[in-house]
Parts: sequence; C-alpha cells; structure tokens
Amino acid sequence: MPEARAAISPRDIGVLRGYAVFDFLVTQNGKPFLLDDHFARLRRSAKELRLALPLSKAAYATVVKKLIARHPFRDAVIRTVLTGGVSSNGFVPDGIPTFYILIEWRKKLPLAYYRDGAKLITADYQRFLPHIKTTHYIEAVRNSALCRRKKAIEILYVKEGYVLESASANIFLVKGKRIITPRDRVLGGITKKLVLKIAHKKFVVEERPVRISELRDADEAFITASNKGVLPIVQIDDRVVGDGRVGEVTNGMMHLFADFVKRY
Amino acid sequence: MPEARAAISPRDIGVLRGYAVFDFLVTQNGKPFLLDDHFARLRRSAKELRLALPLSKAAYATVVKKLIARHPFRDAVIRTVLTGGVSSNGFVPDGIPTFYILIEWRKKLPLAYYRDGAKLITADYQRFLPHIKTTHYIEAVRNSALCRRKKAIEILYVKEGYVLESASANIFLVKGKRIITPRDRVLGGITKKLVLKIAHKKFVVEERPVRISELRDADEAFITASNKGVLPIVQIDDRVVGDGRVGEVTNGMMHLFADFVKRY
Repeated sequence: MPEARAAISPRDIGVLRGYAVFDFLVTQNGKPFLLDDHFARLRRSAKELRLALPLSKAAYATVVKKLIARHPFRDAVIRTVLTGGVSSNGFVPDGIPTFYILIEWRKKLPLAYYRDGAKLITADYQRFLPHIKTTHYIEAVRNSALCRRKKAIEILYVKEGYVLESASANIFLVKGKRIITPRDRVLGGITKKLVLKIAHKKFVVEERPVRISELRDADEAFITASNKGVLPIVQIDDRVVGDGRVGEVTNGMMHLFADFVKRY
Repeated sequence: MPEARAAISPRDIGVLRGYAVFDFLVTQNGKPFLLDDHFARLRRSAKELRLALPLSKAAYATVVKKLIARHPFRDAVIRTVLTGGVSSNGFVPDGIPTFYILIEWRKKLPLAYYRDGAKLITADYQRFLPHIKTTHYIEAVRNSALCRRKKAIEILYVKEGYVLESASANIFLVKGKRIITPRDRVLGGITKKLVLKIAHKKFVVEERPVRISELRDADEAFITASNKGVLPIVQIDDRVVGDGRVGEVTNGMMHLFADFVKRY
C-alpha cells in the first residue's frame, strides 16, 4: 500500500516503550542482497524480545520480491520492522505484534567517501543488546548534528578502552596485511560476515577484542554496512589513520566486495 | 479524537529509531496532579533530545483539562508523547515532531500491595539518559514475564553495587527514622520530589548514592511513582526487608502522601 495509507496506533509499544526490532537490506542487480542472512538476524532479534515473526522465510522472500518488482527504483533499500504491537496495559505485549516492510529508493553515499575516505568521531557508548537490531538509536540520532559539524560520517562507539562498532556499521582496522575487527558486544553485521568470508582469499583476518589505542595506531581502517559496503576511514577524531589516504588493503577489500556484488 | 482515528506514520523515528520522550500524570480529585512539574520534566526530556515542544505550559494545561472534562473516568492517566516525527532520511529529525496526549481510565493497583507490601527483583542495568523519560523500556518490558513468575511488582535496577531506581518508580529505604533515596543516575520523579518535600515534617531525609548492601540491611523500603503513590516494598529478590511487614515510617509516608492528595 502507499505510505500515506499505512498507519500505526499511537498506543503501539513500538512507540510508547521502544519495544521493537528491525532489519535493513539493499538490492543488488535488482535482487534482495543476502536476504537469508537478514531474515535469520531478524529472527534472532525477534527472539531476544520474545516476539513472534508472523511469516516464514519463504513468505518473507516472496513479499520482498513482490515489493521490488512493483517499484521502479534501480537500487532500493528494504526496512522490515517488528514491534510489540498494541498492548492492553501499555507495557506487556499482548502477542499480536506489528509487522511491516518499507521499500524506498536507495540514495547512494557520495563517491568521495570511497575515493578519499571518511571520518569517524568517538563516543563513550555501547549499544543495548548489541548483538541484535533494536530500534534504540537515540545516542546516534542525537549526535547527528555533531557529526555534521565535525564532518564525520558517523559516531564510533568506544567502551572501557575497547572499540566496538560505529552507529550503523562494523569497524575493521588493518595492520600490515592483517585485518582485525572487534568480536564482542557488536552487531553481527551481514556485510561484516561477508567481508570476513571473502577477505581470506587475500588477507589474514582476526576477530577479537580491539583496543582503541590499536585502532589509533592502525595503517588503515574501514567500516562495513549494508548501505555502505566497504567504506574507508581515514580519520578518527582529530587523528589521521595511517597516512590519511585510502590504503592498499582497504582498496583490495573494496574490489573483492565489488566483485562479489557483481556476480550476485 | 477517538483512539481508532489517531495514527502515526510507520516512518516516524519515534518507531524506527526509538527517538521519543514522554511523560505520564494522573488525576486526583478530577484535577491533573502536579501538572507543572510534569510539564517541566517533559520540557527537560525534549531538550535533551533537541526536540521542540509544540505548545506552552498554559496551552498544555488547557488541553489536558479539556480531555479530563470530556471523559467520565473518576480517575484517569494522561500520557504525553513527543517523537522526532517523520524524518526524510529516516534518521535525523526534520524539525516537525509528532506530539500527542492520550487519556485513559486509571486502573488502580491491588490494595494488598499497600496493606502487605510488594516484592522487587534486581537486574544489573542502568537506564540510558536516566534523568529524562525516553521511551526506551526494552529491559523492563522483556523482564515483565519474569516479574509475573517471581510475583514481583517490577525490576529494581542495580549498577556497580549501587541501587538506582525500579523500572517505573524511585526507591527509598528506611533506617531508623532516616529516609534515604538514591540521588544520581535516576529519574527526577515527581512523586519522589513531593515525598522528599513532605517527609521533612516527620523524618530525616538523605538523598545520596545508596549501596545495594544498605538496601538489603534496611528496616523498611518503599517506591514512589505517579501511578503508585507511596508503595511499600517488603521483599527484594529472595530477601525480606526488615521484618517483612509494612513499617511505621512507610505507613507515615503513605499517610502524609494521602493527606496531600486529599487537599490537592
């Protein structure tokens, strides 16, 4: 249905109590990219909040493909939302969740990010239930004005000396030919998972706790996300990463990723 | 308007990004109870999320009184919600927030709670931006089944050995004639503020950091909230507070509170 006809109750605990999870995928070559992984993660998110997904993976894939076929966007983003629904006491889910899928045109990021690299700024923060995708993004949203002012693409979360993830991406650092990414207290990114898989062809990969000092001393850095792919990071706060240019390993990963996408 | 006609956009960042604050007040003797305090707190919450409240205190009071006059409930609860609204990029507020006020019948808590006292169960948690009322209640909601199973009224948040607050109330402990309540990393409860003010008539009051060990050794305990008033706590996890009965000081506070309400 058109967006204007879709409506949520003002008593939905997705609004009143922030009780909701979501997932987000893009299309590549007109196909939903890595849908199986996204659906599996949505199921994990739902389970953590004790919500039932109202459809199977096959039914989900059918609806998503139908949405894509109906929309003339060359590239689309698809957002799937599951909330606790309207609750009779405004608190405890009654067992009838709200579920919807939104399709939108995909606005690509400026090419300069991929050519020259982007900047992150750090914040002392760890996402709540970091292994799943709740809708709790207050910290990221309230810092968006600061990001604009500082010309940063987004906030990088650091907790107790450890780098975790950025507001909507996973982070990787490069030291020599080694690619290192935080293992714990982060989202199981679908693009991260893919990068870890295809990186092995050329590089050594380590998934483990990463200190912020290690990131500051890295040769290169990049972030990964469904709507970003592999995106180079050349500055963190006031400090340049490596020589401040997009490095060889990051370029290698961008090419491996582009090849995978092309053949998808 | 009737609830069935009210609707929120599925793209509202109050849903998609949990970017929302609210406040909650009750009526006493047909009047909105402590409306000035609630409006001031709503304004503080809005400011922290850089959202603009779309009306003045006077206009708010007028609307609330109109809603009360139109509804035949003897006791009502009034929930005021402010979200970031529909955002063109699904992330950054465009500056047109969503604002609404819901009125509902107030379902009073069982009298047994006030006569015999209630139980809390602890969780290792601190609310995000604890001094304001965001809609982020995932931790409380997902623990509601556990509370029912354990016959607890709600979850008590404890962080790094310090007692903070319960899921929707402030906590007080009693030692001798002293009433002690946590000062930091908690919501500025309106009922808490009132209790601190009227307690001085009879008791010594301390507002300061409180260790969980101190609460476990307390003579009495109670919680305060707009929809609970002063509610005695006689058990925390598997441990009885004091002699497990509603104590003298708690009873005194319940009477002081009831007197204040009667004269409101």
